[in-house]
Amino acid sequence: MNERTKPAHAPITQFANVGNYLLVGGITLQRLAQRVGQTPFYAYDRALLSERVADLRKHLPKEVLLHYAIKANPMPAVVDFMARLVDGLDVASAGEMMVALDSGVSPERISFAGPGKTDMEVTRAVAAGIVLNLESEGELDRAVAAGARLGIVPRVAVRINPDFEVRGSSIKMGGGAKPFGVDEERVPALLKRIGAAGVAFEGFHIYSGSQNLRADAIIEAQARTLELACRLAQHAPGPVRTLNIGGGFGIPYFPGDTPLNLPAIGAELARRLSQVEARMPNARVVVELGRYLVGEAGIYVCRVIGRKISRGQIFIITDGGMHHNLSASGNFGQVIRKNFPIAVGNRMGETKREIASVVGPLCTPLDVLADRMELAPADVGDLIVVFQCGAYGLTASPLRFLSHPEPMEILV
Amino acid sequence: MNERTKPAHAPITQFANVGNYLLVGGITLQRLAQRVGQTPFYAYDRALLSERVADLRKHLPKEVLLHYAIKANPMPAVVDFMARLVDGLDVASAGEMMVALDSGVSPERISFAGPGKTDMEVTRAVAAGIVLNLESEGELDRAVAAGARLGIVPRVAVRINPDFEVRGSSIKMGGGAKPFGVDEERVPALLKRIGAAGVAFEGFHIYSGSQNLRADAIIEAQARTLELACRLAQHAPGPVRTLNIGGGFGIPYFPGDTPLNLPAIGAELARRLSQVEARMPNARVVVELGRYLVGEAGIYVCRVIGRKISRGQIFIITDGGMHHNLSASGNFGQVIRKNFPIAVGNRMGETKREIASVVGPLCTPLDVLADRMELAPADVGDLIVVFQCGAYGLTASPLRFLSHPEPMEILV
Repeated sequence: MNERTKPAHAPITQFANVGNYLLVGGITLQRLAQRVGQTPFYAYDRALLSERVADLRKHLPKEVLLHYAIKANPMPAVVDFMARLVDGLDVASAGEMMVALDSGVSPERISFAGPGKTDMEVTRAVAAGIVLNLESEGELDRAVAAGARLGIVPRVAVRINPDFEVRGSSIKMGGGAKPFGVDEERVPALLKRIGAAGVAFEGFHIYSGSQNLRADAIIEAQARTLELACRLAQHAPGPVRTLNIGGGFGIPYFPGDTPLNLPAIGAELARRLSQVEARMPNARVVVELGRYLVGEAGIYVCRVIGRKISRGQIFIITDGGMHHNLSASGNFGQVIRKNFPIAVGNRMGETKREIASVVGPLCTPLDVLADRMELAPADVGDLIVVFQCGAYGLTASPLRFLSHPEPMEILV
Repeated sequence: MNERTKPAHAPITQFANVGNYLLVGGITLQRLAQRVGQTPFYAYDRALLSERVADLRKHLPKEVLLHYAIKANPMPAVVDFMARLVDGLDVASAGEMMVALDSGVSPERISFAGPGKTDMEVTRAVAAGIVLNLESEGELDRAVAAGARLGIVPRVAVRINPDFEVRGSSIKMGGGAKPFGVDEERVPALLKRIGAAGVAFEGFHIYSGSQNLRADAIIEAQARTLELACRLAQHAPGPVRTLNIGGGFGIPYFPGDTPLNLPAIGAELARRLSQVEARMPNARVVVELGRYLVGEAGIYVCRVIGRKISRGQIFIITDGGMHHNLSASGNFGQVIRKNFPIAVGNRMGETKREIASVVGPLCTPLDVLADRMELAPADVGDLIVVFQCGAYGLTASPLRFLSHPEPMEILV
């Protein structure tokens, strides 16, 4: 493969530079690092969060509600900021529920999905008045019992495990045998039980895959999801008020990845919605997104503490690594390690390039942030920036591995 | 492949049962869970730690010193216990250094390796009087500068990146271009600088790989390591007092893995040591072990909170998972996911078996503790035990992923 055809990272266009410095939230990276007072840190850019939501509002049909799945980034400041931009929040644990409620979003706009809710979690969700996405028949029984104990009518939706998979999803959540949701063929019987149980029926949650960059695959999944919901709505004990069709919108991480064609998805979804309106007249369709909302707004920053040449190969040794950013190190469920987009954040104007590996301080060969990548020559004190780190960064990393200090997080 | 030839897990013989219950530290698992008061938890068995050290003392040559690399399990109670059994501790960060010093081990028996030590870490290590394993020429300069500032003579050893790799290591740490240590061909020049720098020279640290189950490969690596040390000792500014030859001893995790042949390693090392004695008369050889000392003494315990059949497949849903135990979920740098040994800890006497998958509470298909494994039929309330979890468990896991509570840790 020659240079011309070698896959490259999609260009990082969301951040500007001033001279040699990357700009984050209008502040140079150097000044930001001084303000934080330590490296490594994660920084998330408010303006980019707003822009992403505005872009979604522009391209998705007007009647679609937008939810933020806070598991992607549960930093309270991020959740508070997103809560004012979107129509609801989705949580995956009682811990996340507390953060969501603290943001001031009203409970009926919060939904709780997760295949392993404990009795305590079910009880707390019922007490909070949020919507429980039921993942099994047994969970209905537990919600009913909790409601009876508390004297509160539980609000429930049914999470459905469809019988289809989404092509092109790097993380498949539906199709075949799964711990998630109720197999679609068992849903009619469950809906009957819900009708008899005296709970408030909210609707459906159908989520079939994550981190998908193929618009055609997402369009196909949305079509099948809407069709499935219409079919199952006939068995519902009341009108479907909310239909969460998931999201799965991906962001480009690796060489060769291209950004999602959002306009195509929005146009096709509008066409589909007009067709299903008559069959589910009361249903508000929810698109639930995590990574797509926050992923590209965040960076991980660490400092070069050593430069070393071993047998002709350049190693840039930093104070950050896999313990802070497991995904960027290539060790979070990835089969083949690929580099995230990376730059030397205080040498953005530098045109010279060298092939170097960026590694962390840990005593393991897994601790690699960039494997033989073309970078501006970096030296001790420089700031290494890993892009596309706003989602599944800090909380998805083994922070206590080798007992190093935790990174900071800031919203700028 | 028929049942007879299908690879199986090496039998777990270190824990006994009483009736249906697994015994940990002489206590039934049920009572232990009641004492902890919550699931999930990690439990480490003191008696097994002692037994493992005794076994090593029995088979390794008498003159070999045994060090514990606390990164494998830095729980303070474990480190304190191990400190009384072994001859020294090895740390990989200033955080680990604090735990090591708290155990009361004298500083000169603590060594600090790590390719990315910060200035602060170098300074603190010099202040503490522990041995710095130098990973680069630049680190010597920083140690000298810290010593001058503090008025303390730094104690240094040289970590060497050998030009050989160890066959059969699942984690390779030496050979080729590496961020670890100083390339062996550059060591003579560094030793000359050490002689001129007025620091205390302790010796060498040569570590070439981890988690190796092949005695022949370890024997070969030890032979090459000793030979390399003898050769480089001629350039040393003073006698080599300590020669850390690493460890790399593996434990069986997966079907088909077999325990290490320790007697073979010990016998061959004794033979080699008698040969090198004349060439490094003052050197104490250190074998540094982490995983091998603590890995098999620990279990991870979680509780079944749901049992679900999706399209014919049985899912045992627990309150624990990849957020607590990334390695057991198969997501910590593993290319092909394989099951750790797992049992239903309160049904050890049950002879009935079913094929089931054990999954956690997270909304991701990566959250799997056992993929279609033969287990005693488990139901809500039962205790799932994952064996071989004493090393790289809790601290090597993304504990905050999805904001679930942290597991407890106990030493029994």
